[in-house]
Amino acid sequence: EKPRHQGMAKNTYMRWRLPLVCLLWEVAMIVLFGVFVRFGAEADAHWEEEKREMNLTSDIENDFYFRYPSFQDVHVMIFVGFGFLMTFLKRYGFGAVGFNFLLAAFGIQWALLMQGWFHSFKDGKILIGVENLINADFCVGSVCIAFGAILGKTSPIQLLVMTLFQVTLFSVNEYILLNLLHVKDAGGSMTIHTFGAYFGLTVTRVLYRPNLEQSKDKQGSVYHSDLFAMIGTLYLWMYWPSFNSAISDHGDAQHRSAINTYCSLAACVLTTMAFSSMLQKKGKLDMVHIQNATLAGGVAVGTSAEMMLTPYGSLIVGSISGIVSTVGYVYFTPFLESRLHIQDTCGIHNLHAMPGLIGGIVGAITAAAATEDVYGKEGFIKAFDFTGVYRTRTPSIQGGFQAAGIVVSLLMAFAGGAIVGGILKLPIWGDAAAENCFEDDVYWEVPEDEESDVYHMHNPDKPASP
Amino acid sequence: EKPRHQGMAKNTYMRWRLPLVCLLWEVAMIVLFGVFVRFGAEADAHWEEEKREMNLTSDIENDFYFRYPSFQDVHVMIFVGFGFLMTFLKRYGFGAVGFNFLLAAFGIQWALLMQGWFHSFKDGKILIGVENLINADFCVGSVCIAFGAILGKTSPIQLLVMTLFQVTLFSVNEYILLNLLHVKDAGGSMTIHTFGAYFGLTVTRVLYRPNLEQSKDKQGSVYHSDLFAMIGTLYLWMYWPSFNSAISDHGDAQHRSAINTYCSLAACVLTTMAFSSMLQKKGKLDMVHIQNATLAGGVAVGTSAEMMLTPYGSLIVGSISGIVSTVGYVYFTPFLESRLHIQDTCGIHNLHAMPGLIGGIVGAITAAAATEDVYGKEGFIKAFDFTGVYRTRTPSIQGGFQAAGIVVSLLMAFAGGAIVGGILKLPIWGDAAAENCFEDDVYWEVPEDEESDVYHMHNPDKPASP
Amino acid sequence: EKPRHQGMAKNTYMRWRLPLVCLLWEVAMIVLFGVFVRFGAEADAHWEEEKREMNLTSDIENDFYFRYPSFQDVHVMIFVGFGFLMTFLKRYGFGAVGFNFLLAAFGIQWALLMQGWFHSFKDGKILIGVENLINADFCVGSVCIAFGAILGKTSPIQLLVMTLFQVTLFSVNEYILLNLLHVKDAGGSMTIHTFGAYFGLTVTRVLYRPNLEQSKDKQGSVYHSDLFAMIGTLYLWMYWPSFNSAISDHGDAQHRSAINTYCSLAACVLTTMAFSSMLQKKGKLDMVHIQNATLAGGVAVGTSAEMMLTPYGSLIVGSISGIVSTVGYVYFTPFLESRLHIQDTCGIHNLHAMPGLIGGIVGAITAAAATEDVYGKEGFIKAFDFTGVYRTRTPSIQGGFQAAGIVVSLLMAFAGGAIVGGILKLPIWGDAAAENCFEDDVYWEVPEDEESDVYHMHNPDKPASP
Repeated sequence: EKPRHQGMAKNTYMRWRLPLVCLLWEVAMIVLFGVFVRFGAEADAHWEEEKREMNLTSDIENDFYFRYPSFQDVHVMIFVGFGFLMTFLKRYGFGAVGFNFLLAAFGIQWALLMQGWFHSFKDGKILIGVENLINADFCVGSVCIAFGAILGKTSPIQLLVMTLFQVTLFSVNEYILLNLLHVKDAGGSMTIHTFGAYFGLTVTRVLYRPNLEQSKDKQGSVYHSDLFAMIGTLYLWMYWPSFNSAISDHGDAQHRSAINTYCSLAACVLTTMAFSSMLQKKGKLDMVHIQNATLAGGVAVGTSAEMMLTPYGSLIVGSISGIVSTVGYVYFTPFLESRLHIQDTCGIHNLHAMPGLIGGIVGAITAAAATEDVYGKEGFIKAFDFTGVYRTRTPSIQGGFQAAGIVVSLLMAFAGGAIVGGILKLPIWGDAAAENCFEDDVYWEVPEDEESDVYHMHNPDKPASP
Repeated sequence: EKPRHQGMAKNTYMRWRLPLVCLLWEVAMIVLFGVFVRFGAEADAHWEEEKREMNLTSDIENDFYFRYPSFQDVHVMIFVGFGFLMTFLKRYGFGAVGFNFLLAAFGIQWALLMQGWFHSFKDGKILIGVENLINADFCVGSVCIAFGAILGKTSPIQLLVMTLFQVTLFSVNEYILLNLLHVKDAGGSMTIHTFGAYFGLTVTRVLYRPNLEQSKDKQGSVYHSDLFAMIGTLYLWMYWPSFNSAISDHGDAQHRSAINTYCSLAACVLTTMAFSSMLQKKGKLDMVHIQNATLAGGVAVGTSAEMMLTPYGSLIVGSISGIVSTVGYVYFTPFLESRLHIQDTCGIHNLHAMPGLIGGIVGAITAAAATEDVYGKEGFIKAFDFTGVYRTRTPSIQGGFQAAGIVVSLLMAFAGGAIVGGILKLPIWGDAAAENCFEDDVYWEVPEDEESDVYHMHNPDKPASP
Repeated sequence: EKPRHQGMAKNTYMRWRLPLVCLLWEVAMIVLFGVFVRFGAEADAHWEEEKREMNLTSDIENDFYFRYPSFQDVHVMIFVGFGFLMTFLKRYGFGAVGFNFLLAAFGIQWALLMQGWFHSFKDGKILIGVENLINADFCVGSVCIAFGAILGKTSPIQLLVMTLFQVTLFSVNEYILLNLLHVKDAGGSMTIHTFGAYFGLTVTRVLYRPNLEQSKDKQGSVYHSDLFAMIGTLYLWMYWPSFNSAISDHGDAQHRSAINTYCSLAACVLTTMAFSSMLQKKGKLDMVHIQNATLAGGVAVGTSAEMMLTPYGSLIVGSISGIVSTVGYVYFTPFLESRLHIQDTCGIHNLHAMPGLIGGIVGAITAAAATEDVYGKEGFIKAFDFTGVYRTRTPSIQGGFQAAGIVVSLLMAFAGGAIVGGILKLPIWGDAAAENCFEDDVYWEVPEDEESDVYHMHNPDKPASP
């Protein structure tokens, strides 16, 4: 009756494996949280005493009021933004939103621990507050990016395994960059986008499926799925200023990050539209570009947004990244697939990898070009945290370390992606056969709806089910 | 021409009844607002003087800046969250979003008055500010929950009548709990969820329709409607930390509520996915569970989120509630319908009733277990408001009162639901016949679209309209 | 093969024109930003020094924390609110969301400059901060409104040209009102809605298409497109309190604006539902009304929300505007089209023009009725900014100036709309023929999906493409 899903039951039966992984993991989280995680001073009921000690006169000085609105915007980007952006596929909407939901909910718990051990560990406890929640969302953002490359080709268990490893590697890489290299990367061009994207591209390379053209008919969109995807696009686009400013220093740094990102994204839309039309023989706009390349401007100022990039600098960076990203969709993605066997479902190479590199480079240049004149004496020290052992760092040295951060992120991504890809290739995780990729029916109860009637309509010997 | 809607015109003609109810109500609101409602000190133009009197040095001390971002998140949950969550039905999207819109807009006005009389009444006037707006949204949330039980089976007039009574009863119940029993329930496990859900379940029991299987074909979802519902789910899930923290004390309490809720919800997703797959013979995930049970973690920490539940405590509560809720969808909902004649369209028993009870119980235990050591001397008094006449309350007594709050909420829900159900059973409100349930066409102008062509396609003797 | 789009290739080929306009524009923006735009004091790295000079003790005093959450809500309204509101057409969802995205991204850059020259110009530089971002979004809001009148009938180039001119005229009109007439209009009833709507209506009048009935079949909605539109409606409705309060004075004024708008919108929903049912023979609700007229209450308190309109005053204004708007959809829109040849795709006359006028009038009355008793001595001066040369203004004179502001806005709209309409009528911009209006296929790559198969299904001699 449904011959195209013949091999499914054997391959993709999740009934015991998926629950086992989910429950084991959650039990581990509970135990580890029980041992390690406690409220930070600003979320603890002892806050009244803390306030007195720190000479704070008002509850409004609690970090909650500086960062919570940005946190919620970031939260929307991770769950609705990434989730719906990937619903463009005609028959993979449940998987896009649902698996993104699963892996992100899974990842933020593990990220709270991993990042906590590196950054918020005190007297044997991880002390968390709103900034930790933002950082956990950021970390998971890099997993959502990597998910974009393998969308439709992996089982939920593979995604959970990848999340486990990627969050771990992300935290190590982040620690190297922020703590050892003393690099600035508030919006994560390097730690989130470059690392996440090249990690995902390496994984999808390792998982190369030579027969993927068997599910070619499902790799496209339908009219409504493109509109659902625009929900994701717009929320990512609108809230990106919050993303890049969420963990910047209080005051001018948060303010500046938001403005730079706003400008970069606005410019990016125009160059994306221009090149989308220009690169197409009929001159029509392509929703794939509008859904994705318009966001490259946010990625590309991820490192430099909190610096004195200036509004016109942001327009330049945004303009360039929109062009690079759109050109990528038209020329690079087919090349990557046919020549390098990198099957990149969502085109994360164009949206995150290249703009992430641009972002790292722009950050290095902006840091190297910083002067006390532009930042003010105090602002200069505060912006780059040139205190303590870093008191003697000069902008050009900082620029060098920023550049080193890009290289480290790339190496971590390639090495990590290769290893994790190898693990995911093991034949035990329940991924679907090539002809069943990009099809929700494999892992989800799918309603027998009008649309599928329409689908069957074309096979006259298979009558539409009532 | 449209035989399946034959009896409609007679039953469900809204032309004079619905406008009459809406306009009468709105006139009443205007009169009552005119007599009673004024701006509170922080929204009144006299604020400059107030500021001086209260020795406030900055406008940022205005409650607006403590609570407005949370208010907007709650607002989204009520209108988009609940509205879209209920669009999962294939032909009831207009009713889901539109009637939710109507009853909530209707309810918040009445709630401002009812809650105002109980809590913000001073010198003959109700003085409102942003906290009142949040509380009005909360109150209406309990009506949206009850709406979930009777979705698709009631006329808009019935919904307006139910809203009128339920808001009233909610306010009385809330007054008993918060003021007479001095119970803590910032996120409303008891006042909103337990009360709202058992109220709705009682109403749907009274309105039992023995022939509802006549509209069985419309009780399911289609592919796109499940994606629309996920918009609702995700907004509820993402903003729930704002919901549970919106009216907590300034500072650490708001901060802590958000963290606890974030943790609980993350854990809940994993156990929901696990049990959704485990309880299904083919091991596939069911969108009904993902759309609903993933939210149980937010309900179940509604009372205790602002307490020192701790992150790992939140993980435990979230994990359990996800399991209970998913099991409920698989086993309890069919049982309730077949044995107890409780037809619960959205499964609010699983999403709100049981997790609400869990939330009340967890709150009672957490309160009873509180110590000055954990909270600090000041924090202890502040967290439970052990001042004035409540100065001598001990944690274990507080725990007892919390438990009493659950019982009171249940009794109010059952009694109120029975009475209101009886009123709604009167044959004057224009509800549809059983065969026309779950069909927008009854109360809405529905476009003659391609989809309905597809629908008619299966009846070969009824040609598709052009 | 596709005869209904025969003339398309000749008319609407965008390949060189659209990229040229986009890129030229963006280069101009970069140059002008480079010359003029810099960070304001609160976003500049010198903020530490500024803080000391202004005697600010905390970073929380940065305007970012007063306005950023409101900014993000406004941002959502412009991009998701307006964008999705216009997706109600069955085959114009890409154009609605995508062109709105393009023109808004385009417009905010130009608005930052235009408004900056008028309001934030200091020592040869435009100094920007979060308030400028909000104002740029506001300005673009008026373009989104005008877009509603010509939706589906214009090329993207026409939209970009219109945006260029409309932003310019908006800024001039805003300068006359706010600076020369010293008028209050925080939520923009006059500057945004009245101006934007009458501008758009004049443009669509000039662009009158006598044969538009040739695309009649595409001017309607389908079931799912009406649900997409409700996303836009609800986000506009929920965030409107942020819109009207976003640039009000810190403290009570922002607080009050939000409350008044909340009340007005709630009342508006009830009267809209009442009249939607009442004005329809079958008494059914019409999604067009619910999607649009429910928002009139936000428009109609745009001027007065920050004044002491009072909650019951807001209910009255909201109730009336819901009625006027719904009546407009039923009676005025057909009249405007048949008699005045004003083809108003989205009915902006009902949602923005008439409620905008009501808003201006209510603002004038509320200002004229202000007393020191109601506002307090300080509050009175602060609310109307009766300082400096305006020290001697009385409420009744202020009311007169407010009324003059309406007239100026109307005149600017009519004159500007006529000129810009004339420019857009030139045969060089690539707009589609009448029979291709309201069809995404003209300017977008549209997936060959199941739905279009359904569409073709009715033509038996044209087999569905695979």
